[in-house]
Amino acid sequence: MIKEGDDILLYFSERSSWLLKAERGKSFHTHKGIINLDDILGKPYGSEVRTSLGDVLKVLPADYLDYLERMIRRTQVIYPKDMGYICLMANIHPGSKVVECGTGSGVLTAYIANLVRPDGRVFTYEVRKEFQEIARKNIEKLGLEKYVEFKLKDITQGIDERNMDAIILDMATPWLVIEEAKNALRVGGRLVSFSPTINQVEKTVEAMRTSGFINIRAEEIILRRYKVKSNETRPETLMIAHTGYIVSGRRG
Amino acid sequence: MIKEGDDILLYFSERSSWLLKAERGKSFHTHKGIINLDDILGKPYGSEVRTSLGDVLKVLPADYLDYLERMIRRTQVIYPKDMGYICLMANIHPGSKVVECGTGSGVLTAYIANLVRPDGRVFTYEVRKEFQEIARKNIEKLGLEKYVEFKLKDITQGIDERNMDAIILDMATPWLVIEEAKNALRVGGRLVSFSPTINQVEKTVEAMRTSGFINIRAEEIILRRYKVKSNETRPETLMIAHTGYIVSGRRG
Amino acid sequence: MIKEGDDILLYFSERSSWLLKAERGKSFHTHKGIINLDDILGKPYGSEVRTSLGDVLKVLPADYLDYLERMIRRTQVIYPKDMGYICLMANIHPGSKVVECGTGSGVLTAYIANLVRPDGRVFTYEVRKEFQEIARKNIEKLGLEKYVEFKLKDITQGIDERNMDAIILDMATPWLVIEEAKNALRVGGRLVSFSPTINQVEKTVEAMRTSGFINIRAEEIILRRYKVKSNETRPETLMIAHTGYIVSGRRG
Amino acid sequence: MIKEGDDILLYFSERSSWLLKAERGKSFHTHKGIINLDDILGKPYGSEVRTSLGDVLKVLPADYLDYLERMIRRTQVIYPKDMGYICLMANIHPGSKVVECGTGSGVLTAYIANLVRPDGRVFTYEVRKEFQEIARKNIEKLGLEKYVEFKLKDITQGIDERNMDAIILDMATPWLVIEEAKNALRVGGRLVSFSPTINQVEKTVEAMRTSGFINIRAEEIILRRYKVKSNETRPETLMIAHTGYIVSGRRG
Repeated sequence: MIKEGDDILLYFSERSSWLLKAERGKSFHTHKGIINLDDILGKPYGSEVRTSLGDVLKVLPADYLDYLERMIRRTQVIYPKDMGYICLMANIHPGSKVVECGTGSGVLTAYIANLVRPDGRVFTYEVRKEFQEIARKNIEKLGLEKYVEFKLKDITQGIDERNMDAIILDMATPWLVIEEAKNALRVGGRLVSFSPTINQVEKTVEAMRTSGFINIRAEEIILRRYKVKSNETRPETLMIAHTGYIVSGRRG
Repeated sequence: MIKEGDDILLYFSERSSWLLKAERGKSFHTHKGIINLDDILGKPYGSEVRTSLGDVLKVLPADYLDYLERMIRRTQVIYPKDMGYICLMANIHPGSKVVECGTGSGVLTAYIANLVRPDGRVFTYEVRKEFQEIARKNIEKLGLEKYVEFKLKDITQGIDERNMDAIILDMATPWLVIEEAKNALRVGGRLVSFSPTINQVEKTVEAMRTSGFINIRAEEIILRRYKVKSNETRPETLMIAHTGYIVSGRRG
Repeated sequence: MIKEGDDILLYFSERSSWLLKAERGKSFHTHKGIINLDDILGKPYGSEVRTSLGDVLKVLPADYLDYLERMIRRTQVIYPKDMGYICLMANIHPGSKVVECGTGSGVLTAYIANLVRPDGRVFTYEVRKEFQEIARKNIEKLGLEKYVEFKLKDITQGIDERNMDAIILDMATPWLVIEEAKNALRVGGRLVSFSPTINQVEKTVEAMRTSGFINIRAEEIILRRYKVKSNETRPETLMIAHTGYIVSGRRG
Repeated sequence: MIKEGDDILLYFSERSSWLLKAERGKSFHTHKGIINLDDILGKPYGSEVRTSLGDVLKVLPADYLDYLERMIRRTQVIYPKDMGYICLMANIHPGSKVVECGTGSGVLTAYIANLVRPDGRVFTYEVRKEFQEIARKNIEKLGLEKYVEFKLKDITQGIDERNMDAIILDMATPWLVIEEAKNALRVGGRLVSFSPTINQVEKTVEAMRTSGFINIRAEEIILRRYKVKSNETRPETLMIAHTGYIVSGRRG
């Protein structure tokens, strides 16, 4: 049942859907017309509502991935294809203690925080105060703030935490943090670094070898999308061919 | 500190490492020689132990990913590159209620169970009793059995659960289950199907369209590995070029 | 030395260059200003000429690939990455006798004609008269018309030629032509078919198997471009991820 | 009709076929049995011949590509996917004058020589005498020796030719030859370099920029093969994921 304060998704078509809070006494404006939110409160999810212009919208419960997709569309730092693999290679799960740098707009922070609940924690480093504020708002909107500790600090100056299960780096100069990352990880803990250029990969891998990391891998995740239609199935013509490389390893 | 009953990893090199339980009064045989497990109990993780042949092994805490990697090496059904993306597209996180079919050797079951802890649950369908038994042992070894309900049932005969957050299909004929999967999902819930051939993708997408799923996507995750060496960096020559396609969508 | 009637390329930058004939008594207008063509006649290639707006253009001899690139930019049917491999798999070289269908705007026709000179020949089929006329003009502009026989005919109604070295199909329904293609090829001759969808590939391969072709292959050529810059080298972000599949085989 | 001295291919199956010369008075031994070559002389191509063990082989005319494939299988330096694109980007066609380095076993030399016939020429540099001898034999076997000039010389010591249409480099240190390559090319001529590592690409592109080359591109050709079977079509599992990068440009 749709309750006051719920995060909802109004769905018209693949291209037109809206994310909002179900609030009493409010109306919501779209290019398909206006709807009165009181009309949907108390109805079951999946119900349909008619706009002032006569179009029919379906009410779905918004989930966490809806927010992530919106955030990703605006900031475009890290893609889902990479997030899924990064978290797997960092072995992130309920209870994990994770250091992340940098926070950016908090997209990856939110994804990790959601996975480490309820006993884990994300310590996220950022040097730019304005980004930290954006990230904090995003994380609060998702109700994940109690799993996140925001740190306004240059991580190359040192990592405060010890005995971490995982460290995730999405920063310009990861190789400057490798030795300190090793000290912050527990034995067997996992480091994952994401970088757009191959030169960053070379320097990061080199630093990891020097610091004695084991199971070092440099990889790239490529996502190919298909247009599926009976008798006309083919890969999509245009594709995001590169976002970044993923380097991973483990404190030996 | 290494305690009796811990899962440990003895690490010699990238190619030689062993996964075992630290048991009192036992010895462990490798081609690098024998070690007496009593010698390591009580020592801190990261300690080194000398084998009867004089080689030095490092003791790491085995984690969940170590087991997965071993299981994957033996059964080769689903690869980490696909698991990470499947779970992201299914929006799996602590608390999720998930139906999975088929269980197979339980590799993906374990990965999901580990993510939905402590309040979520995996209902996993399998028709071959011998596979279910293998999977059950694997899941128990990882201590995840209380998050998993094993079902010995042909899923094309119906799904018992309702109001699921996600359904994950890794089976030969996913299109036969789509309509029933819709009924088992909550509104807004997510379906993800993994299939090796493009023909399966065509039939699955068609069935999802017929059943009214939204946000339908057909995608493929390709992992490329790099050999990184100063001044000689290049992609690896041979690669696993195809495992399967990932179809996803959402109950509208 | 630049002579009257030469095809020349005026080069200003990677984004601004112009293809034209060096004609006496004419001027040429660009957004960088006007140049008087008489000023360049008789000068060596590589010379520079100043426009009325003071910009400096370099005069290069236009070659065949310049024209192809212009034609490709306008029509976008077949890409160089595919043309190179198609001609290799069809074993096209000086002297080859080749049937091609359809002519389209003549881009591939021109590429083949240029390779089979001076003793080979391209027999190119097309059903749409207006396309044939465009192709004829393109081929004449390149001076390759004596190596090409234009046929206004539906190839599914039969191939007139026999004892061909190669047949190249870039048409919607290649599978309808396979049996006749076999008859038109010499023993050992090569068939190559280009199709955008996987369903066309399935039907074409099936028809080739039925007709007894050997060495049948279904392949795809993917071109990835790199941005190379010291310390910032990476693949380009966007890429043409799919043009078509290339099916090839040989009359057994 | 099969004549004495013809290059022929005896075809039994996709995995078993043999390349040989049809010589009078000789027999040919295979694991399928022996055939008497006199039995096939004078018969039409496509005829079948029975071996001493009762198996039936088909006689096809061997072509140039058959030899190349055999040579490639033994030496594995350059793949067809790359050869086709390299020659296209170098704009090689009948009449082209081309410098190549190194000769290696002559696989690419042969491919180029075959395309520049009858008026073009390949000048091919090699420092290792034993390789030059192997290449010479390969080229002679294909009857292409009159289009090739073999040079036993270190190309970094200078290129003797001038006014070349194209220069193709497949060597460890292409960046050492760029300035000299520019001098050897005619204005508008094309340079193509093939290298396995990204570091070589960086140095080569940098040198080409310094030397004033235009239209510089760094690209990679990836070939993906498909298993096509009705209702079971999918990419092949294993693939050659990397051979080398192709850098190209033009003398401005």
